[in-house]
Amino acid sequence: MIPSPYLLYLGAATDPLSVKTSRGVADWRRELCVGERRLPGCAVTTGLENLTYAAAVERGAQTLILGEANAGGVLSDTSAREAIAALTAGLHVASGLHDRLASHPQIRQSAERVGRSLFDVREPPAGLPIGTGLPRAGRRLLTVGTDCSVGKMYTSLALEREMRRRGMRADFRATGQTGILIAGSGVPIDAVVADFVAGAAEWISPARHDGGWDIIEGQGSLFHPSFAGVSLGLLHGSQPDALVLCHEPGRAHLRGLPGRALPGLQECLAANLEAARLTNPNVVAVGVALNTARLERSAGMRVCKETSAAIGLPCEDPMAIGVASLIDRLLECFPESRRTSNTGR
Amino acid sequence: MIPSPYLLYLGAATDPLSVKTSRGVADWRRELCVGERRLPGCAVTTGLENLTYAAAVERGAQTLILGEANAGGVLSDTSAREAIAALTAGLHVASGLHDRLASHPQIRQSAERVGRSLFDVREPPAGLPIGTGLPRAGRRLLTVGTDCSVGKMYTSLALEREMRRRGMRADFRATGQTGILIAGSGVPIDAVVADFVAGAAEWISPARHDGGWDIIEGQGSLFHPSFAGVSLGLLHGSQPDALVLCHEPGRAHLRGLPGRALPGLQECLAANLEAARLTNPNVVAVGVALNTARLERSAGMRVCKETSAAIGLPCEDPMAIGVASLIDRLLECFPESRRTSNTGR
Repeated sequence: MIPSPYLLYLGAATDPLSVKTSRGVADWRRELCVGERRLPGCAVTTGLENLTYAAAVERGAQTLILGEANAGGVLSDTSAREAIAALTAGLHVASGLHDRLASHPQIRQSAERVGRSLFDVREPPAGLPIGTGLPRAGRRLLTVGTDCSVGKMYTSLALEREMRRRGMRADFRATGQTGILIAGSGVPIDAVVADFVAGAAEWISPARHDGGWDIIEGQGSLFHPSFAGVSLGLLHGSQPDALVLCHEPGRAHLRGLPGRALPGLQECLAANLEAARLTNPNVVAVGVALNTARLERSAGMRVCKETSAAIGLPCEDPMAIGVASLIDRLLECFPESRRTSNTGR
Repeated sequence: MIPSPYLLYLGAATDPLSVKTSRGVADWRRELCVGERRLPGCAVTTGLENLTYAAAVERGAQTLILGEANAGGVLSDTSAREAIAALTAGLHVASGLHDRLASHPQIRQSAERVGRSLFDVREPPAGLPIGTGLPRAGRRLLTVGTDCSVGKMYTSLALEREMRRRGMRADFRATGQTGILIAGSGVPIDAVVADFVAGAAEWISPARHDGGWDIIEGQGSLFHPSFAGVSLGLLHGSQPDALVLCHEPGRAHLRGLPGRALPGLQECLAANLEAARLTNPNVVAVGVALNTARLERSAGMRVCKETSAAIGLPCEDPMAIGVASLIDRLLECFPESRRTSNTGR
């Protein structure tokens, strides 16, 4: 577990996408954040107060989240220098970059000198097991997608939030670097050695006996030729009772592969259900989540309605509208989950 | 490339399965082997002459194949000592064990001192690409299976041998440690980071323009809940034009998973063809390869006939009978491949 609360590093960013990990944490774990750290020239903000490392420590901050996301996952000299300054001020440092903090000699030496910890969340835990496919107790929901980056993490977090709002026990299980920083734990599935992907999924969503749900963050797509194997291993290891299909309407082609069309929603859902039955024959689909951020609000609501009618499942935009109808459907399919509610519904 | 010819290490083995990698090399690359190295107490043999390291070097041996295969892939003290003796005598050393030769200080120092190389074939190459799914020139055949360890490697090698016997251009592409030691190159797919499995498959079977075939060694099974993601990534990256389905009749359950039945042959083949169409819409199945080693010869031939009738494809035991009917079918499906034959068929 990465100690919270956090200070969110934005550096001198001018493009919001270049700090999407810090933004994800600010969007989803604002209660764990005491402020942000901006350098001169920075043109983005999470809306949190800009703090020096010393001021952040005074407010109780435990960890600097080095929430950059750049091509290649490179740790810049500026960011390395800031990481050392944060350590010296008494903060732990966490990063989702491909370049490991622990592989940077000056950063490692600084951490050792001041007795602070480094968290490289892109590094899978040691000793992951091989998957067994054996049934285990508890309920699990997995988000699956027509493509990469269609909103599986935001949908998973929205589902967790709505379930908890209703008094249900629900825990988001992170499988990507931003999700891990938001949750404080998880496994970066894309960095696990291939033989262990299903085992890693079993490991992050173990048997549970409290009537609650694990909401597992999906990755990639069964129809993406670069990453489908990752998606299938995650699907088998998750043994989902319920699937939510995520999609971004209007996307011209699979991410990174111009000319290659996305699958149809019905085809994609059917393939995921069929594959999921290998480890959970009773899996059901409970809804579709659309990312309509690029559409006008009225157009977004219309495409959700049309999709719902076409697929025969609830369909919503989790960020624009919410996921209430998906959870309603989940509770219709799993009525015993109502009884675990703290609100006595 | 691992320099040949080889000396095959058997140590003090008493169980043939414990040296299956040396046996695989002896079975399939006997022309590259100058002898075997047995220690006192050894109760198995490849049939090759037992040589000291010095004698092997005199006969031209370049590399000691540390062809043990034990649970956990552990390098024993005895084998480490022998590896150092081989290096000192002037041999390179290659191993498919999980324990890396290069991580053993004494072995590494010995290799550096005498200027010989260490080959840890379980270590994937650095810089593997992400898969693209883009079509590439050339023909590829992939062996797929109902389960792990049903004969995909032996079938792939038998196909390569039969195609070459007919004058066709064909190259076995190894994806497992024994296959890599047999071929002298390849990628240990089970050790590749998940995101790169499809890319690794593309990398080992690149575009070819000579009319020949890549025969790609399959791994695992789409129906094995521990490893299906590996199988799918390999399937997508291979972009196979042709599939051969491998199976061992009479197997009670999936390997390592008592109580979990193998899929039916028809179901397994259909699922592989459907998944393969994502990157090669024209993929066809050309036959079934059965491992009938545990059956009487007459019973083995009967089950091949029955399977062929049931599936509607040629079916043979590659080791007991051969793969001629599978290659006949391949040439019916791909008649242009006849024209690349050196024998002018």
